[in-house]
Amino acid sequence: MSRPIGASRPLPLWASAAHRAVFRPRRHVHLRQDTVTVVPKRSAHTVEQPEFIRGLPLTWPHEGWRENIVLEVTPSHRKPRTAGDRFAWGVTRICRWAMDLVTGMGPEQKVDGKHPTTATIAIKPLTESQWLVRFIFLESIAGVPGMVAGTLRHLHSIRRLKHDQGWIKTLLEESYNERMHLLTFLDMYKPGWLMRCIIFAAQGVFYNTMFFSYLVSPRVCHRFVGYLEEEAVHTYTRCLQEMDSGSLPGWAAPGFKIPDIAVQYWGLQEGRRTMRYLILSIRADEASHRGVNHTLGNLDQGSDPNPFVQESSHFRHMELAATRPAGLERGETIRSE
Amino acid sequence: MSRPIGASRPLPLWASAAHRAVFRPRRHVHLRQDTVTVVPKRSAHTVEQPEFIRGLPLTWPHEGWRENIVLEVTPSHRKPRTAGDRFAWGVTRICRWAMDLVTGMGPEQKVDGKHPTTATIAIKPLTESQWLVRFIFLESIAGVPGMVAGTLRHLHSIRRLKHDQGWIKTLLEESYNERMHLLTFLDMYKPGWLMRCIIFAAQGVFYNTMFFSYLVSPRVCHRFVGYLEEEAVHTYTRCLQEMDSGSLPGWAAPGFKIPDIAVQYWGLQEGRRTMRYLILSIRADEASHRGVNHTLGNLDQGSDPNPFVQESSHFRHMELAATRPAGLERGETIRSE
Ligand SMILES: [Fe+2]
Ligand SMILES: [Fe+2]
Ligand SMILES: [Fe+2]
Ligand SMILES: [Fe+2]
Repeated sequence: MSRPIGASRPLPLWASAAHRAVFRPRRHVHLRQDTVTVVPKRSAHTVEQPEFIRGLPLTWPHEGWRENIVLEVTPSHRKPRTAGDRFAWGVTRICRWAMDLVTGMGPEQKVDGKHPTTATIAIKPLTESQWLVRFIFLESIAGVPGMVAGTLRHLHSIRRLKHDQGWIKTLLEESYNERMHLLTFLDMYKPGWLMRCIIFAAQGVFYNTMFFSYLVSPRVCHRFVGYLEEEAVHTYTRCLQEMDSGSLPGWAAPGFKIPDIAVQYWGLQEGRRTMRYLILSIRADEASHRGVNHTLGNLDQGSDPNPFVQESSHFRHMELAATRPAGLERGETIRSE
Repeated sequence: MSRPIGASRPLPLWASAAHRAVFRPRRHVHLRQDTVTVVPKRSAHTVEQPEFIRGLPLTWPHEGWRENIVLEVTPSHRKPRTAGDRFAWGVTRICRWAMDLVTGMGPEQKVDGKHPTTATIAIKPLTESQWLVRFIFLESIAGVPGMVAGTLRHLHSIRRLKHDQGWIKTLLEESYNERMHLLTFLDMYKPGWLMRCIIFAAQGVFYNTMFFSYLVSPRVCHRFVGYLEEEAVHTYTRCLQEMDSGSLPGWAAPGFKIPDIAVQYWGLQEGRRTMRYLILSIRADEASHRGVNHTLGNLDQGSDPNPFVQESSHFRHMELAATRPAGLERGETIRSE
C-alpha cells in the first residue's frame, strides 16, 4: 500500500482491449493524500446519464424490434378461465381502479367496466408531463415481478436441488427491460420528493406482496403479470393515439430529442429516434411480457421448460411472445412426437 | 380453443432455426382429452439432467478458464483493515467453526486458528462422498448472496430512480455460476432427506440474514462474501491436494466420467474432462468471486462503476479477479487522468 492510491499504474500485459476500455481514465477525479474523491458533475437528483453508462456496455442489450412487429401489437384481453385467472383479473381491476383514482382521472378517462381497456375516448387528454409521471410510477413497479420470480426460482433450484428449466434468465431480463423503460423516462422528467416517497412506499408493499404471493402460487402471479402487461399495452396504445391526434405537440417538436440511453438500448437508427417509435418499442416490450407471462401461467411451474429460451436470438422469441397476446397454450410448447 | 391441446401444429413461417429447435418435439408426452401429461422418465429425487438441459442452451455460458489462470490460483487471505472488515472476518470464522463442528471434522482437520486456512495436513482424509456432501451443502448456500445483492441493487435502482453502475449482471452471474457448481455435484451424489432438510432450513436462515444485512451494509456483505470465497478456494485447494496424494482414487478411476453438464458449461475439451480439471475450474470460479467481492467491498456502493463489466469477454475480467486475491483497490478502478 505504499503506492499512492489513484496513481496511474500500468495494466497487466495480458489485459484485453475490452479490459483496457473498462479501466480507461475517468474524468473529475481529484486526488488528495490517499483518498480518491469523485466530484459529481451533477446534483443529487439529476437525471443525466452518468458518463459510465455512456461509455460502458449495456447489461442485456436489446436487439431492437423489427418494424412489422412493433406495428402488429394490439391491445387485447385474455378471458379468465380458471378460478386463479379470475382472482388475478380481479386484483388487476382493483389496481387499475386505484391508479385512476389516485391520478385523478375524470370518469370519461377511467377504465370502462364493460370494455376492459383504457382505450376510451380521451375527453381531457393528459399532457406530456402527466404521461411521464404515470409512466415513471408504473415502470418503477413493473421492474419488481420479474426480479421476484427470477429470485424465487433460483432459490427454489438451489434449495430443492433441481434444475430450473430455463425460466430464470427470461424473468430477470424482463425486470431489466422494465428498468430500462424507467431510466429512459427519467431522462425526460424529474419526479419531485412527494412522488419519490410514493414510489418508495409502493415498492415496499408490492415487492413483499409479490414475494409471498409467488411462494404461494407462481401460476396465478404470472397470470396477474400477464394482465398487468395487458394494461400496459392499453396505456401505451392510448398514448400513441393521443400523439397521433396532435394533443402531445411537445414530443413532436423539431427540437425534441429522445434520450441517448434509449437510442443505445433499442439500437434506434436515425429515422427512428422519435418519441413515437420509442413508445412503439416500449409497447412491443410490454406485449412480449404479456405473451411470456400468460404462457408461463399456462405451464407446470416445476417441470415444464421455458419455451422462450434461446441460443442467440432472444428477440425472435420475444417477437413470438409479442404477437401472441394470450400467450402460448401448454400444448404448443410441449408437443407429442 | 377448439383444436385439441397437444395436437401437432405448424410453426409460423418466420420461425427461425433456433426457434424451431426450441419447439422441437419432446418425448414422453401422453395425450388425454384436453390435458397433457408429461410422464417423468425419472424418480422425484433423481439427479439425471433432464432432456431439456441437454438440448437447450445454458443461461450464461462459461467461456472456460485458460489453463495458466486455473493453475495460478492460490489460497490467500486479505487482512481486515476496517471495523467492518473485522466484523465480516469474525462472522466467517464462526461459520467455518460451525461447519467443521457439524460435519464432525477431527481437531487436526479443523481450521487452525493461527493460520486461517483449511490447508492443514489431513490426518483422516475425506472420502469422495464426504467431499461431495460438503460441496453440495456449501454450493447451495453460495448461490444466495449474489442473487440477494443483484435483487437489492435492482430494487434500489428502480426505487431511488438511479442508474446501477453495472453491478447487477456480475452479481447475478455469480449466483448462476454457483448454481452450476451445485447442479454439477448433484449429478455425482444424491443427498438424502436429512441433508435436504438441512439445506432447506439453511437457505431460509441465510437468505433472510443476507437480505437484511445487505440493506444495512452492502460493503460489509461484499467483504464477507470475499472471505467466504477465500474459504472456498482453501477447500478446493485442499481437495486437489488429497487427489494428488492418491486418497481419492474413485475420481481417478478409468471408468469415472464427469457430468455432461460440466463438460457443457465449462466447455471442457477432451483431455480436460477429468475431476481434477473440473475442481481446478471451480476453484478458479471461486477465486474470481473472491476478487470481485473484495473489490466491490472497496468501492463506494452508490456511485462507483463495476470494474468487471464487459463488452463481450466477461471472463477476461473474471481472470483479472481470479488472480487478484485481495481484489482491486478503489484507486485502481477509478483513476486520475
Ligand atoms: Fe415497461
Ligand atoms: Fe411491462
Ligand atoms: Fe461454488
Ligand atoms: Fe463461491
